[in-house]
Amino acid sequence: MTPKAITDAERRDRLRLSRTETVGAVTAAALMRRFGSAKHVLDALPDLARRGGRTAPLKVCTTAEADRELEAGAGLGARLITAGEPDFPAQLAALDPPPPLLWALGHVDLLSRPAIAIVGARIASAGGQRFARQLALELGQAGYVIASGMARGIDGAAHEGSLATGTIAVLGGGVDDVYPSEHAGLYRRIVDAGVVVSENMVGRKARAMDFPRRNRIISGLSLGVVVVEAELRSGSLITARLAGEQGRDVFAVPGSPLDPRARGTNDLIRQGAVLCEGAGDVIEVLQRPLRLREQGDLFDAAPTDHDGLDRETERLRERVFALVSPTPAPIDEIVRALAAPAPPIFAALVELSLAGRVELLPGGLVAKA
Amino acid sequence: MTPKAITDAERRDRLRLSRTETVGAVTAAALMRRFGSAKHVLDALPDLARRGGRTAPLKVCTTAEADRELEAGAGLGARLITAGEPDFPAQLAALDPPPPLLWALGHVDLLSRPAIAIVGARIASAGGQRFARQLALELGQAGYVIASGMARGIDGAAHEGSLATGTIAVLGGGVDDVYPSEHAGLYRRIVDAGVVVSENMVGRKARAMDFPRRNRIISGLSLGVVVVEAELRSGSLITARLAGEQGRDVFAVPGSPLDPRARGTNDLIRQGAVLCEGAGDVIEVLQRPLRLREQGDLFDAAPTDHDGLDRETERLRERVFALVSPTPAPIDEIVRALAAPAPPIFAALVELSLAGRVELLPGGLVAKA
Repeated sequence: MTPKAITDAERRDRLRLSRTETVGAVTAAALMRRFGSAKHVLDALPDLARRGGRTAPLKVCTTAEADRELEAGAGLGARLITAGEPDFPAQLAALDPPPPLLWALGHVDLLSRPAIAIVGARIASAGGQRFARQLALELGQAGYVIASGMARGIDGAAHEGSLATGTIAVLGGGVDDVYPSEHAGLYRRIVDAGVVVSENMVGRKARAMDFPRRNRIISGLSLGVVVVEAELRSGSLITARLAGEQGRDVFAVPGSPLDPRARGTNDLIRQGAVLCEGAGDVIEVLQRPLRLREQGDLFDAAPTDHDGLDRETERLRERVFALVSPTPAPIDEIVRALAAPAPPIFAALVELSLAGRVELLPGGLVAKA
Repeated sequence: MTPKAITDAERRDRLRLSRTETVGAVTAAALMRRFGSAKHVLDALPDLARRGGRTAPLKVCTTAEADRELEAGAGLGARLITAGEPDFPAQLAALDPPPPLLWALGHVDLLSRPAIAIVGARIASAGGQRFARQLALELGQAGYVIASGMARGIDGAAHEGSLATGTIAVLGGGVDDVYPSEHAGLYRRIVDAGVVVSENMVGRKARAMDFPRRNRIISGLSLGVVVVEAELRSGSLITARLAGEQGRDVFAVPGSPLDPRARGTNDLIRQGAVLCEGAGDVIEVLQRPLRLREQGDLFDAAPTDHDGLDRETERLRERVFALVSPTPAPIDEIVRALAAPAPPIFAALVELSLAGRVELLPGGLVAKA
């Protein structure tokens, strides 16, 4: 689709939609596709949730609450960019679903340049940090913006190395959540020379549950992810896995078997990640023809015939719900099991998710909530 | 073929054949296939060389010279085993061509057990040597004999780690050529507990030109080769390449890009070698069904119709020679260029090689000498 400019009111409605309980990225994208604008979605939301089987009324984010977040963001000098707007990063827009919105503080234009993520261990070796800094510097000189998570260790070194050429810090909390505290100086330099982004609410401190979504944005913003040092079962490996699922290239820096911080990266190489000994290895792979997928038709669809869909949905809804289990399963399976057209089944699932009865997950999966 | 026992006289004749100028492994194998025994080959040799275009008479290794080598070997307590004998290592016999013979000093029975080669840098890090020693120990405990080249660094550590479970040192010089001198103690312990082997003449000091053949035996004896530390363009990488050409598994231990001794191993991984962080990675690959190729029919063929072949060969020989250039080229290409049957062309090449006019190389290649 062609991204298009929107009104401030529509942007605020998209913020309200995103901040409403039981509305995740999958649900938001599905509803935007169905109703065409956040305003129409918000109008329909309580009714959809009730039909999905919700007894307590759905607590929709109010205009006042959204205005408070918008004012807090404006106070920082941050910008809210929603999926489908021209400034929304193209690589992120290509995700299914894309994050519904992004707060950006600093040089927003960096988000439209090709980016490479460099991530790794928080407790990194001196050599690992030196390598990350140098890699960020060389990739920056080659024209790539560097994305990372502003964590201790490798992340911090990657930002340091790319301050002069372009650096993107993706935070788990709001764009004003400076963590760890010893990175306060680095944070200020990134805001000055680079850009800080977050999907989370302005003013919100990061919690453990925020990091998977944060990691998904780091990889999603990037053409490829380089993992510099990582133990087995570490967050960097999750970012690498997400990158693979998003069709992005995964690079890993090898290390001695005697170094526990190389376990994760060596394992990635064993699983097919590209072995990275320097910027050349990354550039060589990325200079293959770009594989950026066409953006979907998220906000382009004309509003659908609600009443017709609703009648079918009503009949189908409980049959659909009966097929959902606590283990995430592909929605396709439910469609096959019911031998019915997919759109009404999907509409039923969206309503069930608004009611908090099922959870729609990235990758076309659904689970009982 | 079924290996078969031979007389001492035939063994001595095979030694004489191997020690005769212009007779390499390819030529020896071809002549043994054609004439069925070394005795018959030796009888035909001067005539074949003359027909190949040799003007000076071919200097065939004499019985006396062979006896001197046999006595020197016996004096050490070493055994001569020729290709096709029951004790000749099966993995080596599967090579095309196999080394024509092997001197073995120590526990010859170790040569019939499954072996893994561990090789690497002479100037190795302490960590690399510790890793090699531990890897050899664990692979030894898993039932594998360890083969290496008794060089400084990784090789020495691999032997140390496998003295108790079985170790094979393959030397570039004769089985009595102790090099480097600081490995004199290790050499004695290998002779006591393991086995020292060499294709080279007893009493011969290793020269630079001996090491490629030595490396070919290290990899040829083994199901797989593990490279522990190696700079780019090092001998260990040649052994790894030979192993790949011989259809053996190649393993490489990764290392930090900041360590020059990891350049070669990281590059091997990039080229498809199995990443090795410990014995488990090697065992997992080798426990796949064994791919040891059937031994060829090197010494089984009935003697062929010499006269018929000879007449064709005579006509073809100069046309064949005209097609050979100083750059090694596949014999197949010559066969295609002449659009003639392959056996007489090959016979012509063998005679040309005995005459010192062409050189037959492993891999089915030929070059002008």
